[in-house]
Amino acid sequence: MENTNEIICKDLSLKETAKFLKKHDNFVILTHASPDGDTLGAGYALFYGLKEIGKIAAVICADVIPKKYGYFVHETDNVDSSKATIIAVDVATKALLGSLSEEFGDNVDLCIDHHISNSRYAKNLYLDAEASATCEIIYELLECMHVNINNNAAKAMYTGIATDTGCFKYSNVTAKTHIIASKLYEYDIDAATINKIMFDTKSRKLLELERMVLDTAEYHFDNKCILLSVTAEMQEKTGCSGSDLEGIAVISRSVEGVLAGISIKQTGDNEYKISLRTYPPLNASEICKMIGGGGHNSAAGATVHGTLEEVKAMVLDAVKKNMEESDARVSSSK
Amino acid sequence: MENTNEIICKDLSLKETAKFLKKHDNFVILTHASPDGDTLGAGYALFYGLKEIGKIAAVICADVIPKKYGYFVHETDNVDSSKATIIAVDVATKALLGSLSEEFGDNVDLCIDHHISNSRYAKNLYLDAEASATCEIIYELLECMHVNINNNAAKAMYTGIATDTGCFKYSNVTAKTHIIASKLYEYDIDAATINKIMFDTKSRKLLELERMVLDTAEYHFDNKCILLSVTAEMQEKTGCSGSDLEGIAVISRSVEGVLAGISIKQTGDNEYKISLRTYPPLNASEICKMIGGGGHNSAAGATVHGTLEEVKAMVLDAVKKNMEESDARVSSSK
Repeated sequence: MENTNEIICKDLSLKETAKFLKKHDNFVILTHASPDGDTLGAGYALFYGLKEIGKIAAVICADVIPKKYGYFVHETDNVDSSKATIIAVDVATKALLGSLSEEFGDNVDLCIDHHISNSRYAKNLYLDAEASATCEIIYELLECMHVNINNNAAKAMYTGIATDTGCFKYSNVTAKTHIIASKLYEYDIDAATINKIMFDTKSRKLLELERMVLDTAEYHFDNKCILLSVTAEMQEKTGCSGSDLEGIAVISRSVEGVLAGISIKQTGDNEYKISLRTYPPLNASEICKMIGGGGHNSAAGATVHGTLEEVKAMVLDAVKKNMEESDARVSSSK
Repeated sequence: MENTNEIICKDLSLKETAKFLKKHDNFVILTHASPDGDTLGAGYALFYGLKEIGKIAAVICADVIPKKYGYFVHETDNVDSSKATIIAVDVATKALLGSLSEEFGDNVDLCIDHHISNSRYAKNLYLDAEASATCEIIYELLECMHVNINNNAAKAMYTGIATDTGCFKYSNVTAKTHIIASKLYEYDIDAATINKIMFDTKSRKLLELERMVLDTAEYHFDNKCILLSVTAEMQEKTGCSGSDLEGIAVISRSVEGVLAGISIKQTGDNEYKISLRTYPPLNASEICKMIGGGGHNSAAGATVHGTLEEVKAMVLDAVKKNMEESDARVSSSK
């Protein structure tokens, strides 16, 4: 429904994408809002690659880039966006551009992405839904362009691949993912330090928050569902906010026997953000759709209004429905 | 000091190790006590490889093998150990054989290991201290022997590599580690499920224990050191024991700014097992040596006797000494 301008989106091959980039000289590279390791890794690796062949490029993001990415995020060029070629990396829909959507949403010349759900809002699209991360695609693209990969580009791409795969843990990893990782090790990337920053660094305040959150644990539906809550009060007391809270969803998905891990985070007066992690036969995307959100089959989210108790009831009801539906599917296939 | 029998330990090359295995027909494969993914993965992968070429082999361990390894741990052969060739995998010292040490400690014909600290107790040794895991060596060995790798062997080796590297997170990972992982993906191993079992499954009782342990957090030396305690009472209350507690050390190493993460686990009346994780310039191995233990530079342990308060004082004193020594090293090199 998003393409109200009826942009005709052309699918490019990897070679055509490489050609496209070589043909143009000035670029604005857009990353998605609430930036993560993959969108930033892809944006900056592409930037460093384009610089190696004499192009001018800027990387921009609607939101502030977290400091922890500072080991590969450096200043980019000043580019007049009205005369530049606009590229979006790892941005599945216009809306994910955040506040940049208004200016750029209908003017993206090329989108490079790995989300099967890409809404085809760009004029040209290189989509590889088999890639574990957009950074995996950027690596192949730079190789295809015979562009020198420098240390910054290698660190950026490793970061994107590591963060989108939970450090090679998830089912999106393929043999190719490991082959690309092995090649990135040749660029002196100090992957252990990157991984320490991305996965194994917890602030003392976050440790304190986790202790509080564990106190809120509720089990439902025969222990197949765990629900964790982060109230505004907890955030205030510990000083944790925003990206500090990403780890809570990870806790919810790791409890033995749990098929639905719900974390509810207060984001305003009577406003809560729900993060849901599921295992088959449950489907996080279907559940979150019922409460006005969306996402992937195993990880999805929604923003819901009401009191904490109302919000809990709403999401639990949606989980229950999905459980019943999947039970019905199992019975009917017997 | 361990080689009281003055066994002359011969270093083998990979090819010689392959030849050695082909030459013999009956094997007992020893894994270390308190078995982990690498010793079990190596033992069972070697077993499956030897079976593929018609050999008879048993895999044995002093301790019960945790159920979670059940996807590659299956029954092995009955072997008369008095007539068999004795192999130890991932076993750095005789003592690590646990209760098997008495029977086999002085009779190990071949040790295959990646610990630089290997005490050379076996008659023959293939040591590759650059390997991230003994399973990395076993993969190369099976390849060198031109032995068919079956699905069980692949799952076993992937498990060892993943568990010894924190799922490709740590500094022991090399380009070769990722190349071997990419090859193991060809054997339909379902790595995501393995990783879920190894890294992302926490029992409800463990979640409860973690909440209690977080309450014990003490910070020392300008917050460069965190100390977590697990008392016998906590273990009793939650029903957590043994391998359930491995994750506590991981918490201690992940706190921002911490160079020494100490976890102290009660193992008996006035008996405590210390797990230490450090970052440079601190050295876990040096610290644990001071209190009668040992290990790697970044991960080491010791068993210490006394009251909890005495044990805490002892380990904190050792950490303090190492901090002062490393400060002195830094100053003298200026």
